[in-house]
Amino acid sequence: MNAEIIGVGTELLLGQIVNTDAQYLSQKLSQLGINLFYHTVVGDNMERVKQALSIAVDRVDLIITTGGLGPTMDDLTKEAIAEFLGLKLVAHQPSIDAMEAFFVKRGRTISKNNYKQADFPEGAIILPNSVGTAPGAIVEYNDKIFVILPGPPRELQPMFENHVIPYLESKSDEKIVSKVLKIYGIGESVMEEKIQDILANQSNPTIAPLAGDSELTLRITAKTARNDDPLTLIQPLENRIRERLGDLIYGVDGDTLESVVVNLLTRSSKTLAVAESCTGGLIAQRITSIPGASNVFIEGTITYSNQSKIERLGVTKKTLNDYGAVSYETATEMVKGILHTTGADVGISITGIAGPRGGTPDKPVGLVYIAIADKNGYMKVQEHNLLGERTRVQQTAASIALDSVRRMLLNIN
Amino acid sequence: MNAEIIGVGTELLLGQIVNTDAQYLSQKLSQLGINLFYHTVVGDNMERVKQALSIAVDRVDLIITTGGLGPTMDDLTKEAIAEFLGLKLVAHQPSIDAMEAFFVKRGRTISKNNYKQADFPEGAIILPNSVGTAPGAIVEYNDKIFVILPGPPRELQPMFENHVIPYLESKSDEKIVSKVLKIYGIGESVMEEKIQDILANQSNPTIAPLAGDSELTLRITAKTARNDDPLTLIQPLENRIRERLGDLIYGVDGDTLESVVVNLLTRSSKTLAVAESCTGGLIAQRITSIPGASNVFIEGTITYSNQSKIERLGVTKKTLNDYGAVSYETATEMVKGILHTTGADVGISITGIAGPRGGTPDKPVGLVYIAIADKNGYMKVQEHNLLGERTRVQQTAASIALDSVRRMLLNIN
Repeated sequence: MNAEIIGVGTELLLGQIVNTDAQYLSQKLSQLGINLFYHTVVGDNMERVKQALSIAVDRVDLIITTGGLGPTMDDLTKEAIAEFLGLKLVAHQPSIDAMEAFFVKRGRTISKNNYKQADFPEGAIILPNSVGTAPGAIVEYNDKIFVILPGPPRELQPMFENHVIPYLESKSDEKIVSKVLKIYGIGESVMEEKIQDILANQSNPTIAPLAGDSELTLRITAKTARNDDPLTLIQPLENRIRERLGDLIYGVDGDTLESVVVNLLTRSSKTLAVAESCTGGLIAQRITSIPGASNVFIEGTITYSNQSKIERLGVTKKTLNDYGAVSYETATEMVKGILHTTGADVGISITGIAGPRGGTPDKPVGLVYIAIADKNGYMKVQEHNLLGERTRVQQTAASIALDSVRRMLLNIN
Repeated sequence: MNAEIIGVGTELLLGQIVNTDAQYLSQKLSQLGINLFYHTVVGDNMERVKQALSIAVDRVDLIITTGGLGPTMDDLTKEAIAEFLGLKLVAHQPSIDAMEAFFVKRGRTISKNNYKQADFPEGAIILPNSVGTAPGAIVEYNDKIFVILPGPPRELQPMFENHVIPYLESKSDEKIVSKVLKIYGIGESVMEEKIQDILANQSNPTIAPLAGDSELTLRITAKTARNDDPLTLIQPLENRIRERLGDLIYGVDGDTLESVVVNLLTRSSKTLAVAESCTGGLIAQRITSIPGASNVFIEGTITYSNQSKIERLGVTKKTLNDYGAVSYETATEMVKGILHTTGADVGISITGIAGPRGGTPDKPVGLVYIAIADKNGYMKVQEHNLLGERTRVQQTAASIALDSVRRMLLNIN
């Protein structure tokens, strides 16, 4: 089945919002094994929406529209589809009832315009909206399928998950499942070299590598008959990849470096404290963005000035004078200091030059020292020369630190 | 002039990346007064790219392509445009020279494939790439304009700013300038009420309000003849808006709350220290993301545990026992503590429950105390009940704190 997404909304053409609906639906359609050939965005204009529909039916079987289901005059997606197909719009009583209940519950007054949100092309399958007032719909017409979805992602996504995926799966004899492997500490080309023979000639499961800002992912996607289990295809391939990449794979699916570190600390009942200079709180912020971080994260300190490195962490004046704030020695004393003053099991320290200013020929922008230690005497200090502008240097340094803690906790190098 | 953006890249259709190029270009075209009617995305497929071009030339005058300028077989945007227009691809020697220099500088070997990045449809205007190896191009053909841009935003954006905007401006007798007012501490509907009469019936300049996650912007856009100065139209309108919104306007254009705070501290030669609990380093991270923050930011501390609140900040056991870690009293002692231990001029403390767990009927998720103080005795403690999930609560609390520091430094309430 070939598909096109038509986003309807002038706000997209003005750049007021980015088309995350198209990205979300693209990922989902790819996982469902549906070939998505086009994204189109068109404004809130009846003629141009109908022309876009006309182009789409000539080139694909499945047309998914997003947006234009609101109560205002500008919202005209259903009207355009009905006109284009020559169908009448008819009121859907259960949707009217649900909408009235929605307004009563919130103590708001329903306006006359709202009722148009319950009008649908005749014969449509109605998709309830668990979050907002605009139901979606599916219209089947002459071997073409029109899926009509609301624009706000928090309305569109549950509707797609709960209603559209089961519908599309019912149209197919196949089932498709994906698993994502998350990889840190290796470049894209090196990874591809390591698994080149596995990547080549894969058809089912497929393997899709993707390079992010500082990490890599491999998505393994398997397709089977409806009654078989795609995981039986994924598992052997995953095992082969794991043999090659080993502990470079830090997690799967929704895992992040910080969530993996918080989980490892939680499982081993260990606590963490962080002393940051050039990352300015970023490591602490990433750790504490994970629910439950408060069980393992005791304290972070951002010692930007020399004075605070001395007072908070017990870095010696001599070290700062002899080696400078950005040095192997200062990073070492910082991590010892944070372990000592907090009593944490595991400590991280970072000191460096994030830029854009502050670099010298000896210590250029991007020079970063990262120390990881535990209270049993483990100590690892790394020197890195990181590329990119300020926030990129900060993010990369934080990721290296988190991955290093993961490795220490797993006893790998 | 009417326009369409054609994004070329299978990675967009797989949802591996979101189409930020389309958003960026949409904003810029809107600011230039060019009507953007369509976004299209098509995969790395010669026939489908040519069909998309064929649809586009029938409906717009200006076609901007993004992506598909790399060195691989998959990269075929220039080839498709040349074939579509019946033009030959010819090598551009200055681009070859620049590319060879780029590789030499980085100590990398140039591959044979790279040379195709210097091939362009005959007669094209070449747009140098200041960041990567793929130059862009402009092709004028039968009253239609094709602008060919690389996909990576960090390459596309400077190329558009430095080369395409001047080109498009030269095609127009008009000049368009925008100014953005950045607003914090007020909801969208209240703002619109305050300036309803100004918003109504504006045609030149236009005013476009936009609601972000926790702040608002007003974009004022004026259009004049090429030789006039649009700022003479913008200034009186800006003054009228400032009369209504006053100090709710915290900055203009690229300003952020954190950049404004760093600038105010720098100008008044004051230093800042931050004691965070539920925001977990986010305030420090936002502050230190601003270049030059090291001149004013002395220290941040993330005192997640009660113990660290006691040891680092001198919060008393009695206060923690009597009122709890999330309380007016604890916030007050935290900010006093951070001022005392660091000697900073200005202090911020935050304690709260970011969720999703940790809430109680008395102290629900979203309850946050924010204290701002200076060493001359200024003290303001606020209680907020913030909505949304964990990271939203953290971001909102950080923004309120930064805005409160701004207000203190400006002596406004």
